[in-house]
Amino acid sequence: MKRPLVALDWGTSSLRAALLDKNGGVAEERSLPRGILTVPAGGFPQAFDDAVAPWRNIPGALFLLGGMVGSRQGWLEAPYCPCPAGFADIAARLAWVEPGRIAIVPGLNCEQGGVPDVMRGEETQVFGALDLLGMTDGLFVLPGTHSKWVRVEGQRIESFSTFMTGEFYALLRQHSILARTMPADDGELDEQAFERGVRHAVHVGNLLHAAFSARTLSLFDALPALSLPSYLSGLVIGEELRSQHLHHLADPIVVIGAPALSQRYELALKVLGFPARSVGSEATWRGLWAIARMI
Amino acid sequence: MKRPLVALDWGTSSLRAALLDKNGGVAEERSLPRGILTVPAGGFPQAFDDAVAPWRNIPGALFLLGGMVGSRQGWLEAPYCPCPAGFADIAARLAWVEPGRIAIVPGLNCEQGGVPDVMRGEETQVFGALDLLGMTDGLFVLPGTHSKWVRVEGQRIESFSTFMTGEFYALLRQHSILARTMPADDGELDEQAFERGVRHAVHVGNLLHAAFSARTLSLFDALPALSLPSYLSGLVIGEELRSQHLHHLADPIVVIGAPALSQRYELALKVLGFPARSVGSEATWRGLWAIARMI
Repeated sequence: MKRPLVALDWGTSSLRAALLDKNGGVAEERSLPRGILTVPAGGFPQAFDDAVAPWRNIPGALFLLGGMVGSRQGWLEAPYCPCPAGFADIAARLAWVEPGRIAIVPGLNCEQGGVPDVMRGEETQVFGALDLLGMTDGLFVLPGTHSKWVRVEGQRIESFSTFMTGEFYALLRQHSILARTMPADDGELDEQAFERGVRHAVHVGNLLHAAFSARTLSLFDALPALSLPSYLSGLVIGEELRSQHLHHLADPIVVIGAPALSQRYELALKVLGFPARSVGSEATWRGLWAIARMI
Repeated sequence: MKRPLVALDWGTSSLRAALLDKNGGVAEERSLPRGILTVPAGGFPQAFDDAVAPWRNIPGALFLLGGMVGSRQGWLEAPYCPCPAGFADIAARLAWVEPGRIAIVPGLNCEQGGVPDVMRGEETQVFGALDLLGMTDGLFVLPGTHSKWVRVEGQRIESFSTFMTGEFYALLRQHSILARTMPADDGELDEQAFERGVRHAVHVGNLLHAAFSARTLSLFDALPALSLPSYLSGLVIGEELRSQHLHHLADPIVVIGAPALSQRYELALKVLGFPARSVGSEATWRGLWAIARMI
């Protein structure tokens, strides 16, 4: 990577930008409350200029953007790149906003049994984790509103699956009958209640049934109201983990994400007997840097 | 049953009352918008008097009430009766509001793996269906916000499980990302989309993942927006059916409920190759009548 690189992680609700050094480290970083949902029609050039203001005039700089900015609701739609896909496939399919200067990383799509799946942004984090950890194969999980489970072989993303875990948690937490007996705030994680939820979800094998236990345990005073959010969190994460094929893995699962949520996944995996390691938000910058090397 | 019987089906959001004839048939029936949630503190005697006004002075009448009226939020809490439980067990545990005259049918509880489950009202429908169909054993499903799967042996409810299917549908339909691409109204059932949803849920085996297909199929124009509610309905009902042990059943599954929803369950069961028969709301009256015979 000989050109200076400015990387943007531009999602639905947030926008981060960083000037990266020649080794992929962060030289300077900025964060703006300008997720794509806040940008009016035609407003992307201005929002971009604001975000990269300190670095706009760096001679020969490449601006590489990842995340939902490449969706139909973003600046410029970057059509999904089909799996399997590696660094070079992504680099060959960048959507150029300004040729040679500003490019958007495409998301990936894959298909299982005639049903498509998609990601946008997570592929960059996986590529970053591969680069950071020096890995070529493995199973990666990116927890969130829509968690992604990503299988990598030979530095290419072979396939992936989306689990609406965070969204189900929020729906049940805020809008379901289970919300009625819960405190307003989630509070600190109650690890014991969380682990109980993980185990119960795996044992039952169906969240439609397992979730009702948050109601009945409360009804029979078998779980304090303050522990219910942790228990529910364990239920949905346990439900997600139950469907992964983890028994024949050679290496620890890599959890990519913010520390608080990653810790829950590591704890849940530990409860089920699977080793894990984690990578934080630095994976995004590293992924954009690794893709930029291929241009 | 020698005494005249007035039966009340008093739920969370509705109240129905009927004068039954000596064979358990409905002689007269009324419906009032007075679910227990609409009744103010101390207002149950008045609401009851209003509901049974035409029959209040029938000499020697027994008034038997079933449903959420026996919950902690109802008129008088009728403590749960543990499973296994038959007609006589229920009759022996009535909660008498007015001794010899007004009684509330208790709900049932059971326990699986240290986790309780509960029902209130559905037990009466199952007893009614047993009586109507002349059955002593079988598997019953009562679809709804919280569907119940009930196993009966020797005319006693052995065990049951709750599935939050209707509530999950409503949450996903109204509050999730899936709602964004759906029409305002559910419209007519699209049987093909419904069946596709059932099959996909069973194939995937995890609603957290399967539900995302309603998003991606829409994104790739592989399913019209108008078909999405039917597809989602198929997904959640398929997810519910997937966890039942249906392969070794000697008799058809009995679906108890309102026709529109029962038809969906019968269709889903047919897609999966399982025979079903259905019983409508008459099961409630018959159940109350059958319990009254034991008093």
